[in-house]
Amino acid sequence: MDRILTYDSTLRDGEQCEGITLSLEDKLRIVERLDAFGIDFIEGGFPASNPKDIAFFQRVQAMPLRHARIAAFGSTCKKGVAAEEDQGLADLVASGAPVATIVGKTWDAQVTRALLTTLDENLRMIRDSVSFLKRQGLTVVFDAEHFFDGYKANPDYALSCVRAASEAGADSIDLCETNGGALPFEVGEIAAAVAAALPGQQLGIHCHNDSGCAVANTLAAVRAGVTQVQGTVNGFGERVGNTDLLTVIADLELKMGRVTVGPENLRELTSVSQFVAEACNVSVPAHHPYTGASAFAHKGGLHASAIARFPEAYEHTPPESVGNTQRMLVSELAGKASLVAKARGLGVDLSAHAEKVQAILDNIKEREAAGYSYETADGSLALLLKRHLGAYRPHFTLESFRVIVDDREDTGALAKDAMSEATIKIHVGGERFVATGEGAGPVGALDTALRMAIGAFYPQVADMELVDYKVRILDENVGTDAITRVVITTRDGRDSWGTVGVSENIIEASWNALVDSIEYGLMRIEEGCR
Amino acid sequence: MDRILTYDSTLRDGEQCEGITLSLEDKLRIVERLDAFGIDFIEGGFPASNPKDIAFFQRVQAMPLRHARIAAFGSTCKKGVAAEEDQGLADLVASGAPVATIVGKTWDAQVTRALLTTLDENLRMIRDSVSFLKRQGLTVVFDAEHFFDGYKANPDYALSCVRAASEAGADSIDLCETNGGALPFEVGEIAAAVAAALPGQQLGIHCHNDSGCAVANTLAAVRAGVTQVQGTVNGFGERVGNTDLLTVIADLELKMGRVTVGPENLRELTSVSQFVAEACNVSVPAHHPYTGASAFAHKGGLHASAIARFPEAYEHTPPESVGNTQRMLVSELAGKASLVAKARGLGVDLSAHAEKVQAILDNIKEREAAGYSYETADGSLALLLKRHLGAYRPHFTLESFRVIVDDREDTGALAKDAMSEATIKIHVGGERFVATGEGAGPVGALDTALRMAIGAFYPQVADMELVDYKVRILDENVGTDAITRVVITTRDGRDSWGTVGVSENIIEASWNALVDSIEYGLMRIEEGCR
Repeated sequence: MDRILTYDSTLRDGEQCEGITLSLEDKLRIVERLDAFGIDFIEGGFPASNPKDIAFFQRVQAMPLRHARIAAFGSTCKKGVAAEEDQGLADLVASGAPVATIVGKTWDAQVTRALLTTLDENLRMIRDSVSFLKRQGLTVVFDAEHFFDGYKANPDYALSCVRAASEAGADSIDLCETNGGALPFEVGEIAAAVAAALPGQQLGIHCHNDSGCAVANTLAAVRAGVTQVQGTVNGFGERVGNTDLLTVIADLELKMGRVTVGPENLRELTSVSQFVAEACNVSVPAHHPYTGASAFAHKGGLHASAIARFPEAYEHTPPESVGNTQRMLVSELAGKASLVAKARGLGVDLSAHAEKVQAILDNIKEREAAGYSYETADGSLALLLKRHLGAYRPHFTLESFRVIVDDREDTGALAKDAMSEATIKIHVGGERFVATGEGAGPVGALDTALRMAIGAFYPQVADMELVDYKVRILDENVGTDAITRVVITTRDGRDSWGTVGVSENIIEASWNALVDSIEYGLMRIEEGCR
Repeated sequence: MDRILTYDSTLRDGEQCEGITLSLEDKLRIVERLDAFGIDFIEGGFPASNPKDIAFFQRVQAMPLRHARIAAFGSTCKKGVAAEEDQGLADLVASGAPVATIVGKTWDAQVTRALLTTLDENLRMIRDSVSFLKRQGLTVVFDAEHFFDGYKANPDYALSCVRAASEAGADSIDLCETNGGALPFEVGEIAAAVAAALPGQQLGIHCHNDSGCAVANTLAAVRAGVTQVQGTVNGFGERVGNTDLLTVIADLELKMGRVTVGPENLRELTSVSQFVAEACNVSVPAHHPYTGASAFAHKGGLHASAIARFPEAYEHTPPESVGNTQRMLVSELAGKASLVAKARGLGVDLSAHAEKVQAILDNIKEREAAGYSYETADGSLALLLKRHLGAYRPHFTLESFRVIVDDREDTGALAKDAMSEATIKIHVGGERFVATGEGAGPVGALDTALRMAIGAFYPQVADMELVDYKVRILDENVGTDAITRVVITTRDGRDSWGTVGVSENIIEASWNALVDSIEYGLMRIEEGCR
């Protein structure tokens, strides 16, 4: 069978990555993007664990997904508890997700030393939990925890665990290489043994990169008969990280003749990699396979003509096949055609302005070199396009602003109050307004002052709410003199949009993103986008 | 055969990595370190290419190496030129290196389309070059460029190339997966075919990571009979990078029962990884296999007691085996034992203060709930511990600060200049100082003012440099009212440390992190840490 199902765990296992925390809005935007990319299953989180995940499962049900199915994650019922009585399983059902993924133990020592129960009771827990969820009409994925260590220690017991899940009706049994220590030849051999023991059962694979072999382990399992691959975007995950699902997808499509998202969607690979990294507030490492900025960058001595004469010698795959570009350009907007397509997605028709496309591309490159990034800032990109087409009329113009932050130290280490005050002088509809806002922080004070100044002319701004505010320091190793990039997400109760600001001064960068967020919101209303 | 030879190419192929430039002194220090670590071959560079490499080969001859042998890198003689007349081969001999590694073509299309000569002439070049170098008494490694693509295109010709090198007396024939696109099963099959065709010939393997499989490809070749592994420290190299030689060494030693540097030297793995990264002026990625700071870090509700009960479930190898350390992320310092252990690592002995440990834990939890994170802020954690023990005496106390950011809009979208000015009033050594600093941004202005105010009393602050400044917005979905966490990294030319500040006000959060960074730096000096 040539079709391999893709199962993304960025929102659950990926969020275990040190330094990554996703807001609810981030998670929903990632779902939207992965769905459009053609991922088959998107694991959303633990519905039992915290209010954010519960809210996620509520919100995601209202999203019109094209292709992907949402999975809720949990575990088998507790020892000594009937599946029907188990709170965790009830939470999975209540989440409303069509897919339930439950993890269960398959390593004998884990059962006796960590779970502290009998091998038979563990089999009962697996069987009853899968069977219960199937009776609720759910698609059930059984994650066989520590399967490879378990198989090496006691192959009969490990097999009896996955057999129990299979007989209870699990739609997929995903073998988990939990501590990340296995090598490809072991994974391939053991996966083949399971495929032989459970003919007809769909199998999956879930790996971690602790031995530097997560991608190869996953591919070895596919060669052994596994047809569902789990991973996270960019390999985000705890310790050394999970399998990078994007690299696996590219390897399967380009080198193993398997079908996942298909060659057309594959061209979005680099863009998806960057989008999710931005949402996680980290960068795609420059040397990341397929999607890194250096992945198709060639050293100085190699000339374009040599590459043109014999590209296969220098590039293992055409960079366009994964949406990356030769040399150093790191943008989904690298070529004219992709810019025109992207603009169309933003409601801006560039096809009637062919003569301006090159100038727009040049301007985007110039701004990217200065620190801008439009991956998650469609609002700012739309404004930039409109400006180039002469179709942009600012709703207000700034004369000046001044922000004052006053702090008076007192003794308590946690209880201090710095106050911020922002005064802006602004021109709206031919009149000049001076407004002062206060806030706990300087950006809140600026936001308040701006809304006061333009609220009389544009009462619609009351509906626009800043829901996300991210700061990235670029060139971090120049300390406090570094360039700051601020990305703001704004919502008007129906849609949300991102805008970006860049400056050496964090306040000014925030102001720029703030202005774009309001300008774009007003433009949307005028154009009848809502 | 259990012994696998290690061949490091950090100084040659690794230096092709974008952003890495090594001075002559750097190269010599790396040689010294890799030699002590037990690497068998160290490739130093092209003796023909530039004055730095020529000087390297002169200087390295005077170094008393314990174990490693230095290799000079070049290529086969030019087409139509006798080996005896070839300048490049003469340079290899003149370098004084005991090992010459020459690259030659083995892909028929490369010979005819890139080299623009005949297949027979290429065989002549290989044979004569190897034979010439052997007659000069050198150990000869033949790097078979593009071997795997060549074999897939024309197995007979690819084999005839390596057979020519073998018959001419090459000590090792290293199969190069040059464009990085192959997968482990192909590499294993092709390497096995070469081993069968050239019985008794020592073979090596050289891979790149473009498919995310460099380590696995290298291990597959070893399983097929190859006994020399090439790579670079941390996988540094152009595009996506070379095989990470350190991960390969750990996998071979710990998981495949092969001998490379031996278990004792293996404990230096993390230290070697960090040392070479520092010399290259980059950081080891936190999620790097075996040697990254997060490689053995645990969070996600995992308690120290669970790991102690069943370590194999959470760690694929003991972190000490590769000189790394288990790290319970501080957010998981739920237990007293792990806090005491963490404090000990920071030079603070809590065992004599058992009665205070619970209060410290409670305080850490309270601060974490308020947004603090000590994962990367050991400096702030050390100060917190000292404060609780009554062993902390602040070097200065703030009376107040005021920061003013002024912006006057002009028309250019990228060209604006906001100015920041910070005035601080501070008490140092019983005196009161008022100082004003300017900066492009508000934090830079505060930093300048603080250093001016305390510099007369503490001239040591001139050696402390802010090298990294990160901002994280917490609770992002409350927009600009969110809590801001700032983490600063400071370096004094020898060590670096992280500090954290949290506030609703980004300026105040930055100030708090800044104060901790200077306080901790001064404390270190007094305690004789340097």
